[in-house]
Amino acid sequence: MTSSAQAEARRPRRPSGGPESLLDKAVLEFNARGYDATSMEDLSRAAGITKSSFYHHFAGKEALLRAALERALDGLFSALDDPPGVEPAVGPSERLRRIVTRQVRVLMDDLPYVTLLLRVRGNTPTERWALQRRKAYDAEIAALVRAAVDAGEIRAGVDPALAARLLSGLVNSVSEWYRPGRRGTASLPEDVARAIFAGVLPAADPA
Amino acid sequence: MTSSAQAEARRPRRPSGGPESLLDKAVLEFNARGYDATSMEDLSRAAGITKSSFYHHFAGKEALLRAALERALDGLFSALDDPPGVEPAVGPSERLRRIVTRQVRVLMDDLPYVTLLLRVRGNTPTERWALQRRKAYDAEIAALVRAAVDAGEIRAGVDPALAARLLSGLVNSVSEWYRPGRRGTASLPEDVARAIFAGVLPAADPA
Repeated sequence: MTSSAQAEARRPRRPSGGPESLLDKAVLEFNARGYDATSMEDLSRAAGITKSSFYHHFAGKEALLRAALERALDGLFSALDDPPGVEPAVGPSERLRRIVTRQVRVLMDDLPYVTLLLRVRGNTPTERWALQRRKAYDAEIAALVRAAVDAGEIRAGVDPALAARLLSGLVNSVSEWYRPGRRGTASLPEDVARAIFAGVLPAADPA
Repeated sequence: MTSSAQAEARRPRRPSGGPESLLDKAVLEFNARGYDATSMEDLSRAAGITKSSFYHHFAGKEALLRAALERALDGLFSALDDPPGVEPAVGPSERLRRIVTRQVRVLMDDLPYVTLLLRVRGNTPTERWALQRRKAYDAEIAALVRAAVDAGEIRAGVDPALAARLLSGLVNSVSEWYRPGRRGTASLPEDVARAIFAGVLPAADPA
């Protein structure tokens, strides 16, 4: 299955008005106004339906936030594992390379959802739950980085905790400027992975 | 002058209540609540003074935002140049290494101000002005990356525009987790520069 086919399978598109399309619209509003500043009135207006139709699908603002963050987190966690049928990675370093590549692809496919997740600051129970899951994800990455250093695949002296933070920082920073359909971004997942392992500005080979 | 001495020169600390200390407090409020959601009442309460005393120093919320963003931007632009008396860098690649190092130091020294700048989305004239200046900064970095590629210092095939974005992304991501006084971060400016040039996860040298 290609990555865009995977994205399609993850996010069935409905013709209109279904809960998935309402969620898409709510996420855009949350990102534009900030979650705290967005009311159910704002959301119904943006979706072009009445507030009571909206409540038919979602119990309220926090339920929408939860569904949206769940989707972003599920995408992120799905990046940790190879899709079925793929030959397992030989070592932790190759596993990390694949994870980075898939994580960037999830970010590109589900940009508004990932953006929402990255802006979570922990002001509500749902936000704190999302921060906990992000922490668990980061811990998995940190453990893999440590394994790669221990296996002698990564240069000795690299601090696994710092490297894990910088890895996530570099991947997530893509959400600041990437927009779907942007020219020259087809190879972005591989470009970011290359930057993680060889440098954003790798020195030229000596002539 | 050491870097912390430079930070001190850039930010004279007043005993209390002066405009600089009010600005510090306002920036913390803006970061905690979001600029739009913060009122002059909130700011006066946080500073422990009356609203009219606050207006004695700043014309209003937008003036505070402007002063705060100006400080963050001045810090950022100061990173572009070597301090007086420093031997000039030999090539664009070495210039970039020094800039990254200084930019991380500015971020660490002035974290709340840089955080505020990085969250600007362009909702007010002041925010749009700040975005324009950030763009000008990014263009300087992109030009230097291009020069480093043209000079053959950076591996051929690296896309200067993408590399400049990833460079800023990696540097700025530090603001997501760095907190002053955090253990093991003394060498962070050099660590980030090393990650930019050699990789976050550089391969071990073959044994």
